[in-house]
Amino acid sequence: MASGARVIEGHATAREMLREVHQAVHDLSEEHRLTVTLAIVVVGQDAATLRLIENKKARAEEAGVRTQLHTLPQETSDEEIITVIDGLNHDGSVHGILVQHYLPRYRDARRLIEAVDPAKDVDGFHTRNAGLLANDVPAFVPCEALAGIHLIKRFVEPRPVGWHAVVVGDTHRTGRPAARLLLSERCTVTVCNEDTRDLADISGQADILVAATNRAGMIRARHVKPGAAVVDLGRSRITVNDELRIVGDVRFDEVREVAGWVTPVPGGVGPVAIAMLMRNVVTACRRQNRLDEKARHAGAA
Amino acid sequence: MASGARVIEGHATAREMLREVHQAVHDLSEEHRLTVTLAIVVVGQDAATLRLIENKKARAEEAGVRTQLHTLPQETSDEEIITVIDGLNHDGSVHGILVQHYLPRYRDARRLIEAVDPAKDVDGFHTRNAGLLANDVPAFVPCEALAGIHLIKRFVEPRPVGWHAVVVGDTHRTGRPAARLLLSERCTVTVCNEDTRDLADISGQADILVAATNRAGMIRARHVKPGAAVVDLGRSRITVNDELRIVGDVRFDEVREVAGWVTPVPGGVGPVAIAMLMRNVVTACRRQNRLDEKARHAGAA
Repeated sequence: MASGARVIEGHATAREMLREVHQAVHDLSEEHRLTVTLAIVVVGQDAATLRLIENKKARAEEAGVRTQLHTLPQETSDEEIITVIDGLNHDGSVHGILVQHYLPRYRDARRLIEAVDPAKDVDGFHTRNAGLLANDVPAFVPCEALAGIHLIKRFVEPRPVGWHAVVVGDTHRTGRPAARLLLSERCTVTVCNEDTRDLADISGQADILVAATNRAGMIRARHVKPGAAVVDLGRSRITVNDELRIVGDVRFDEVREVAGWVTPVPGGVGPVAIAMLMRNVVTACRRQNRLDEKARHAGAA
Repeated sequence: MASGARVIEGHATAREMLREVHQAVHDLSEEHRLTVTLAIVVVGQDAATLRLIENKKARAEEAGVRTQLHTLPQETSDEEIITVIDGLNHDGSVHGILVQHYLPRYRDARRLIEAVDPAKDVDGFHTRNAGLLANDVPAFVPCEALAGIHLIKRFVEPRPVGWHAVVVGDTHRTGRPAARLLLSERCTVTVCNEDTRDLADISGQADILVAATNRAGMIRARHVKPGAAVVDLGRSRITVNDELRIVGDVRFDEVREVAGWVTPVPGGVGPVAIAMLMRNVVTACRRQNRLDEKARHAGAA
């Protein structure tokens, strides 16, 4: 089979979304004197975290969103971090809060997430936002999942009703919300995990295959039905020749021979996810200021 | 094939659970002078609602749980209902609250559910409890789903890791939480809905088939893999010879010829669900009184 897959690049879509966000930010400033602001709390850090944050800051700047960086040393106690978060919760000039997740394993990341006001939880990780999504009233939805489904609807099929979607990986931040969104699109949805027997048998039935394992390169050509849409939400750090690289779950060169569509890593879902995050910050700002959402949404997003 | 399916009766399991609940209720009374109490708010009513409530009251009595019935006329406004719910939220002698759901369609059932204190939401319908389940920290889980999975673990396979479970029906109260629980058991889980193409192709792959459509008799023998475990969470009211009957999603007589296990309706999941509800009320009472849960749980449930 020829290299048939259309490659779904995320950069152009992301740029377009960021322009729309920029317009919305501008309108909020002009009409309501609001400065849309995202606070990022980082505890400890490493090269990859710093790079990711630099990227988010750059995209925020592109969208006209102000950022505040709160960098805390690795050894900061949970109580101290929560005090910082709580200050941001009560700061009316801050509309969205991110807590960067590259924390040492011993730390109770869930406790920090729950400390964020759900109305400012633009990552969509808080229990309240997970519950709203589970109950079909999505508020803030994790951005990678949102971006993956957005790309399918935009480039593959705007109404994938009745399609069989297989999500590989029952992860909180990617696979799980992606499955929920696909069910809302009225797909038939299968969620696989590490204990799935004969993964290729099941993933090979997928019209839409969403990879969300964070296991580098585990999705091979043999897992993919010819012509399927393959969306890679995975992200792993690997070191090649002393250089840190981000790779996805999908063996791109293999899978593109079989699939109908495939998102690359990097440059596929990632940039759109960051644009979705900026859109969430604008939504948060509007809601916190009780601005008419429907009317403005139609105009800006 | 011979009538091979083992019929999973729920009554004996329910009775056993209710005895355990009774012991726990007794201990709470003896040791902490607590009277475990369930409040039921009913707005409007019909014969089937009354019968269901009588059943819950009888089972509560069997378990030693005190019930309070708050019956409001059909025309009661949402505000008035919420005032009643709020009174119960603040009443320390009430541990669990049910709002009966046979409300006229125009009414905003979600608003009433959200008015219940999540700590007293023994039905597990509140957004907070849905979010906790979505995030793998289940608090109160909808009882039919809990009962269905309990019966599988008890009678079919205590650790169905890697089994393929197919849930037919993406309903809030049954299919959706059942899918989540099966994922927590590390099953591969497929959720089907009304738009699923070739349902029998997919349901026929299931080791565990959970029916949750509330469409009477829609699951036929041809939907079932030989030897599968079939759990019927459906409930429809039909009238036969002027008599109201409750029937499930599964054509029992047909499916029992094919399946390995099948739960009947009535008498399968239903009684266990009510026992689960009573267990939830005891859990609610303990948590509200900050009694050591783990230690007591081991002894009583």
